[in-house]
Amino acid sequence: MKILTFLTDFGTKSSYLAQMKGVALSITDARLVDITHEISPQNIREGSFVLSTAVKYFPAGTVHVAVVDPGVGTERRGIVVTTAKYVLVGPDNGLLMPTAHNLGEFAVYEIKNTAYMLPDISNTFHGRDIFTPIAANILNGLPFNQIGPQIKDYVDLNFGKAEFSSTETKGKIIFIDNFGNIITNIEIRLIKGFIEYGKKIRIKIKNKQHEIIFTKSYNFVEKGNLIATIGSSKYLEISINQGNAAQKLDVKIDDEIQIEYS
Amino acid sequence: MKILTFLTDFGTKSSYLAQMKGVALSITDARLVDITHEISPQNIREGSFVLSTAVKYFPAGTVHVAVVDPGVGTERRGIVVTTAKYVLVGPDNGLLMPTAHNLGEFAVYEIKNTAYMLPDISNTFHGRDIFTPIAANILNGLPFNQIGPQIKDYVDLNFGKAEFSSTETKGKIIFIDNFGNIITNIEIRLIKGFIEYGKKIRIKIKNKQHEIIFTKSYNFVEKGNLIATIGSSKYLEISINQGNAAQKLDVKIDDEIQIEYS
Amino acid sequence: MKILTFLTDFGTKSSYLAQMKGVALSITDARLVDITHEISPQNIREGSFVLSTAVKYFPAGTVHVAVVDPGVGTERRGIVVTTAKYVLVGPDNGLLMPTAHNLGEFAVYEIKNTAYMLPDISNTFHGRDIFTPIAANILNGLPFNQIGPQIKDYVDLNFGKAEFSSTETKGKIIFIDNFGNIITNIEIRLIKGFIEYGKKIRIKIKNKQHEIIFTKSYNFVEKGNLIATIGSSKYLEISINQGNAAQKLDVKIDDEIQIEYS
Repeated sequence: MKILTFLTDFGTKSSYLAQMKGVALSITDARLVDITHEISPQNIREGSFVLSTAVKYFPAGTVHVAVVDPGVGTERRGIVVTTAKYVLVGPDNGLLMPTAHNLGEFAVYEIKNTAYMLPDISNTFHGRDIFTPIAANILNGLPFNQIGPQIKDYVDLNFGKAEFSSTETKGKIIFIDNFGNIITNIEIRLIKGFIEYGKKIRIKIKNKQHEIIFTKSYNFVEKGNLIATIGSSKYLEISINQGNAAQKLDVKIDDEIQIEYS
Repeated sequence: MKILTFLTDFGTKSSYLAQMKGVALSITDARLVDITHEISPQNIREGSFVLSTAVKYFPAGTVHVAVVDPGVGTERRGIVVTTAKYVLVGPDNGLLMPTAHNLGEFAVYEIKNTAYMLPDISNTFHGRDIFTPIAANILNGLPFNQIGPQIKDYVDLNFGKAEFSSTETKGKIIFIDNFGNIITNIEIRLIKGFIEYGKKIRIKIKNKQHEIIFTKSYNFVEKGNLIATIGSSKYLEISINQGNAAQKLDVKIDDEIQIEYS
Repeated sequence: MKILTFLTDFGTKSSYLAQMKGVALSITDARLVDITHEISPQNIREGSFVLSTAVKYFPAGTVHVAVVDPGVGTERRGIVVTTAKYVLVGPDNGLLMPTAHNLGEFAVYEIKNTAYMLPDISNTFHGRDIFTPIAANILNGLPFNQIGPQIKDYVDLNFGKAEFSSTETKGKIIFIDNFGNIITNIEIRLIKGFIEYGKKIRIKIKNKQHEIIFTKSYNFVEKGNLIATIGSSKYLEISINQGNAAQKLDVKIDDEIQIEYS
């Protein structure tokens, strides 16, 4: 089974996504799966995080097209990233790189061969005219060396590593989901040993200190209370049981967060 | 053709839904169909209503996964509900039960067999780690008695029956759709005989009396006027022709509504 | 490969769309693709524009169901529009016609034959009970002359032609996308010759004059600055690089726009 996924910041009111799907189905009989189209407009970091959380759950061979592309129509390049299990297609602006790094070894090809693009290429919609037809052709067996030259000077991106010391772990917010759960870049291994379920931890968010109980899941406190937990992507999350933590704490992506140990 | 549907309160900004779809497609080649992901966060009643309106339109054999799950990671059980035509998979919190009752005879199995879950089970995302792989395995032929023991003490749920007397029918609002149409729990048979197309009916909503014309559909009154009609799910609906009735009447789910006959 | 697309104003919170998909999959094994369900409620013009931008990217043989249908349940007819490459199914209120005109020669059939509808037809949801089953049956090979009589007096619709003179091109806004890009009905050929990349053009929007630089794409000006460009649908668009032009200029669909040459 061939699978092609799409992640964009297009929203779902226009037909941009459907145009890409029409192009895809004109070339391949792959199954089409949406990752999300609600990435904040032009927010490459947010898009790259959401992509990185989804890719590994798909079967080997899946091709992922991601389009958060403020530089469309300029000199920014298009790239194909090949890994052991997956292929990623999108703009060379960092969007694909956190996922690539997560997946182990990878190679990056610049998209050059116009034979596998739409004949009429717009200046503002390479998702439809270049990335989708390239991805669909890859699913049909197009060899990577037909796409263009391998490159090493791609634009890289990471979420920043949380910093760990004897007195604190210092990280930041990388995503806020539909429930208002606050997802940080603090990996489980950077807090393990200090905390256990049922104990309170001191967390500073936007320079305000909170004592937050660390629990296995949301519903171990009264409705409306804060908890800290290890979320489904293995990062520290701050949540409110049946409430919206991001709203209550008035935070946004990139805000700093510290776990204090002393 | 195998079909797997999804109903959640996840929204579509995160990749949670895509993670479930990736898991599903790693196990089965079923067709994946979204019911909705816009259930209000943790609103089991709303989720159960929307599920109940959709299931019966699918071909026999369809498996439906529903995840509105405030109790995830606690002692709340996971269940599989089997009916003559469909299988429902989700948390044991009432979410699946209105649909089950609508479908006639059913059996409920507790999900216990870890052999058909993901190997690494998170505490906060059983939709991905338990419900989806169980559903996908059922589509692949997993016998129900391999899932876990049959149970009778599942958590039940219903929308409440509208009450009928010689002077009034008393019900409540169970859903508000994208148009602002107000869907009540008053079934057609509880009002038939009293009303006919083109006649006004007296309806009390939030203790305010309205005289509302009963019509076959929306466009039988001037734009902006209220109508009462029998909606596509066979319940009484209050609508505004080309307008938003829920906004105008300032109502929400669970608000009471009375049809007065004297 | 059979493909069935859906465009509606239903939103995605209710199960209306899923009901249509369940009906479709009960009749055909076609691939189901969403165009959008975020058309503004009852906005036939907006729906017809979005439909017209998507259809041509799909493979020949695709059947498109579109439902923006304020007149449902009244005397308004249902129609099937057949063109060389595609079939369109929906209400006879103009929704399908801009697309039909774009596609060259076409024929219009009134939907009359109840044998290919659901047995129980509601008054408020013909998308589910009539349009989807008709479309699914067409994908299964139902001959057009079995649907109903060919008609000539269908309800027509167009977006209005932009007017061109030596002193100005006068058009209007036909769509605003998720980014706040303002799409006009001014086709590229009605401005060509007057302008070139990097030159400013004088544009009057809501009686306020702007000098806007005409660029190849968004990112040729500083973040936050206005540009005019030829969008991916070949109409003149007004955008802000990494910003929301529709919000900044406070415009909406149908507002007038003039390009002034003297």
